Amino acid sequence: MADKVNLQEQFVRFDDYWSPKIVASVNDYDVKLVKVQGEFVWHQHDATDEVFLVTAGQLRIQLQDRDEVVLGPGELFVVPRGVRHRPIASEETHLVLLEPHETVNTGDAAAAGTVGERLD
Amino acid sequence: MADKVNLQEQFVRFDDYWSPKIVASVNDYDVKLVKVQGEFVWHQHDATDEVFLVTAGQLRIQLQDRDEVVLGPGELFVVPRGVRHRPIASEETHLVLLEPHETVNTGDAAAAGTVGERLD
Repeated sequence: MADKVNLQEQFVRFDDYWSPKIVASVNDYDVKLVKVQGEFVWHQHDATDEVFLVTAGQLRIQLQDRDEVVLGPGELFVVPRGVRHRPIASEETHLVLLEPHETVNTGDAAAAGTVGERLD
Repeated sequence: MADKVNLQEQFVRFDDYWSPKIVASVNDYDVKLVKVQGEFVWHQHDATDEVFLVTAGQLRIQLQDRDEVVLGPGELFVVPRGVRHRPIASEETHLVLLEPHETVNTGDAAAAGTVGERLD
């Protein structure tokens, strides 16, 4: 059985942006932590919804055909499958993600993506 | 598309204990908020892991054949499927849960359980 996860203790263990770290698994889903700053690529995930929970900073999520969503600490948002979106953070921002195993962060974008490494 | 969810704004909308509220859905999973205080029943979920994230207070999770886990704000723990457990909170404690649709909070226990109502 895995130990408990202290989110803050895990966030201080890495510094790279846009590089998710897997900290727990729940059935066939992974809980990932990621630090972001700057603009990501526009992309979509055709097979899965994606949940973002902000724990520090501020995340803007630009959405195709809809006003952008701005998330602060303690706010979460679900991007439905198939909806093009682009995350943007003007300052360092910490996110908790929940995604099915093998979900690549860049979705359908041509940019090379990553599933994320496991923080042991 | 659902709006963003501010966890704190949702927690102030209800006062009952051990009665999960669904605030978001991700594929076939629900994100639920629940306030707890006191001792719950011993139970297990044979078909699913269960994740607990504490946002306020302190949650003890007693586990069969293992030392209990004590979670404070910003800490999460996954109870694997099939593991008997009992949540206990000596003070009012706020939790974020992630569970597949139709998961009943009392699992296999004889006590009447609930999937949780949707907070609209």
